[in-house]
Amino acid sequence: MLSKPSIPKGTRDFSPEEMLRRDFIFDTVRQVFRLYGYQPIETPAMENLSTLLGKYGEEGDKLLFRILNSGNFFSALKDDELLKREPGKISARICEKGLRYDLTVPFARYVVQHRDEIVFPFKRYQIQPVWRADRPQKGRYREFFQCDVDVIGSDSLLNEYELVRIIDDIFSRLGIPSVIKINNRKVLSGLAEIAGEAEKITDITVAIDKIDKIGLDAVIEELKAKDLSQSSINKLKPVLELSGTTSEKLEKLESVLSASAIGLKGFSELRTLFRYIEGCPLYCTVELDLTLARGLNYYTGAIIEVKSKDVSIGSICGGGRYDNLTGIFGMEGVSGVGVSFGADRIYDVISRLNKFGERKATGTSVMIVNFGEEELKYSLDIIDTLHLSEMSAEIYPDNSKMKKQLAYADSRKIPFVIIAGEDEIRKKEITVKNMITGEQKKILLSEMESYFRSCDKTV
Amino acid sequence: MLSKPSIPKGTRDFSPEEMLRRDFIFDTVRQVFRLYGYQPIETPAMENLSTLLGKYGEEGDKLLFRILNSGNFFSALKDDELLKREPGKISARICEKGLRYDLTVPFARYVVQHRDEIVFPFKRYQIQPVWRADRPQKGRYREFFQCDVDVIGSDSLLNEYELVRIIDDIFSRLGIPSVIKINNRKVLSGLAEIAGEAEKITDITVAIDKIDKIGLDAVIEELKAKDLSQSSINKLKPVLELSGTTSEKLEKLESVLSASAIGLKGFSELRTLFRYIEGCPLYCTVELDLTLARGLNYYTGAIIEVKSKDVSIGSICGGGRYDNLTGIFGMEGVSGVGVSFGADRIYDVISRLNKFGERKATGTSVMIVNFGEEELKYSLDIIDTLHLSEMSAEIYPDNSKMKKQLAYADSRKIPFVIIAGEDEIRKKEITVKNMITGEQKKILLSEMESYFRSCDKTV
Repeated sequence: MLSKPSIPKGTRDFSPEEMLRRDFIFDTVRQVFRLYGYQPIETPAMENLSTLLGKYGEEGDKLLFRILNSGNFFSALKDDELLKREPGKISARICEKGLRYDLTVPFARYVVQHRDEIVFPFKRYQIQPVWRADRPQKGRYREFFQCDVDVIGSDSLLNEYELVRIIDDIFSRLGIPSVIKINNRKVLSGLAEIAGEAEKITDITVAIDKIDKIGLDAVIEELKAKDLSQSSINKLKPVLELSGTTSEKLEKLESVLSASAIGLKGFSELRTLFRYIEGCPLYCTVELDLTLARGLNYYTGAIIEVKSKDVSIGSICGGGRYDNLTGIFGMEGVSGVGVSFGADRIYDVISRLNKFGERKATGTSVMIVNFGEEELKYSLDIIDTLHLSEMSAEIYPDNSKMKKQLAYADSRKIPFVIIAGEDEIRKKEITVKNMITGEQKKILLSEMESYFRSCDKTV
Repeated sequence: MLSKPSIPKGTRDFSPEEMLRRDFIFDTVRQVFRLYGYQPIETPAMENLSTLLGKYGEEGDKLLFRILNSGNFFSALKDDELLKREPGKISARICEKGLRYDLTVPFARYVVQHRDEIVFPFKRYQIQPVWRADRPQKGRYREFFQCDVDVIGSDSLLNEYELVRIIDDIFSRLGIPSVIKINNRKVLSGLAEIAGEAEKITDITVAIDKIDKIGLDAVIEELKAKDLSQSSINKLKPVLELSGTTSEKLEKLESVLSASAIGLKGFSELRTLFRYIEGCPLYCTVELDLTLARGLNYYTGAIIEVKSKDVSIGSICGGGRYDNLTGIFGMEGVSGVGVSFGADRIYDVISRLNKFGERKATGTSVMIVNFGEEELKYSLDIIDTLHLSEMSAEIYPDNSKMKKQLAYADSRKIPFVIIAGEDEIRKKEITVKNMITGEQKKILLSEMESYFRSCDKTV
């Protein structure tokens, strides 16, 4: 016997049990996306490297999986090029394609490539795997699944509101109590403008983030160490001390930002969005979080991030507004906003909350015991009847011992087993064994359908 | 403006319209697989090349997409190895992983790797894309989708029967009248044994295939040209002239094969399978086809192939029994049988039969016209009500001209538009515009749900 075969590190097989749970997540997400009027698209696993390179920073370029060209891929390389052995330069000559790294860049490429067929505003969702040559570790995979939902071609803040409702609806259906954190890139720009130092955005958000842990004085010391002037710090102080309800926070924020046009624009966007959300019967908590600084180099308006309240695992959904996503492919002036759900982390959260167990399996409902050739016709007719009423049913394929057949039904978690031997056939009956209670019951064949229909709620 | 971005040749984007149609195919296939008790698994897009190489013949190895190793992938190569520029040898040193070429080999790898967790017989289905570096042409893609269904760990011919029923059920639901052709590898071996020349299997099946076109005499001439002796040809003659119903064919076949043990075994398998099928109310035609010779190097029993009756496009489904699939990974003596549905060809057949058009779209059911901030609260409440009753609904995000908003609803094929301006709000009404008939109707807001529920059949 050879050693067991294996799969590349950072990748996974999904067993039937895992597939049922994953399908529950994907089906829920898909159902809500459709409910809100979003349409599915899919793009190929492979994109041209010219589409992918330079879109994820220098680090991202290194994490792309590249696909070797077919044919004699070395013939065009000169001897000295080969012998220099520079991976970056050589791979650019022997690879034209790479695996997609996320769903955002392929979506931007799709919009530009198909712009003549698309009706704007274009509301699309996309659920597909992505690949990154990251170092694999617990909870981080080289193949993982994203569920993206975006609307492109509309500036309206109703889109941001709709995304918040979608997030809330999905985590409510999945049973994951969560916090939806909202910030605005223009507000952060405004704060930096007021501090007089645009490049200090990150330092400022990091500082605000630490207030709870190290206190106001220590944070002010840190900002000084980062070369912010005393007068800048004085201007920012009300923001550092921000507390209270969202509307109280917004009020203070407005006064701080009053000297910055872009800051006030961001403030106004935030206020409108929170006004829309106000009074909605939400499952999740929504809060303003000025420390939220994800995607600073491409988000231009709203920034959104979602965290589970009960499981500490990082963000399970995130996104924001980008005013120029398609600009990288030469189509300027199209604004979009979207969020991405991380199916793998959501899976881990539901597992840890132990919420999968409550769901019923969708495997086979009825197994028919195989008694051999004599009884076969009767069994096959039973199966046909069950299939016609859309009940999943199977006959055990081999005429094995009853014990083995029942053990199979048990391990497959099949709730009902039909026993139909000589005696039952003569009386036009079947014996139904309830595999959960162990109970056995004889019923007329003609009453089988209505019997199982009445059991349906308990299966 | 830059030139439009593009995708690698042989790959495709799927638009919302295409996705709806493809989902109809995948959902149907999945539904039937589950009805018959099969369970889903998924495997990673990337497999180790050691898993894939040598499994698809020399030609197959060349068609594998290989993934470049990360890091300094050239450092282990010596100068002279590099300068020889042999693509095969170098790629073996710089690539460890490849994209899956089909779903069969990854399934075999899965079974061996997880054999301790699997309950046999293991009935699994798998619906995923595969990749082949074939020359792209009409109807042949480098990324395409297979839907595989297999049962492994059971010798029973009931499995073959079940697969025939699954095929019939699926093509019935998809509305594709088809012929299910069945052959048996042991029968072909038997015929070759009787002809005295095992290596002539292919010549014999090719000859039988040509009878209708060129006639018996010409076929006999061809067999002679292939060095078959006159006595071999005499023995095969009854098979060459095989005609009539399946049971008439089987009868003649039995007498021809009477001198070959393996041939008779195959004959007996065929007879049992046809006896199971006999009298079933089938949508498709099932026929014995001795010319069917697909997968000769791995099928060991039944060979199955399905063709559309009305569209000439090659096989839309095929498979058979393999007695030693997992042997390639060191696990001997496990028999399996399965078929694979080609989603892309099935898509083409349904398109050409024009059967997609009859299906209703599953996009947005209701769009609400955006009248601006004043009327917004009323509109958002309407949406909430519709979403609560699981009706897909969206508000047009921008306060654009009515004409533009209606044009959007029209191009999205949204059947109902709700108009709720100042007047409607005062009277607690809505105006519903039926986008198909053009009809407009005022109804009370409190009656909206029951109104749309009554429309549901016409949407």
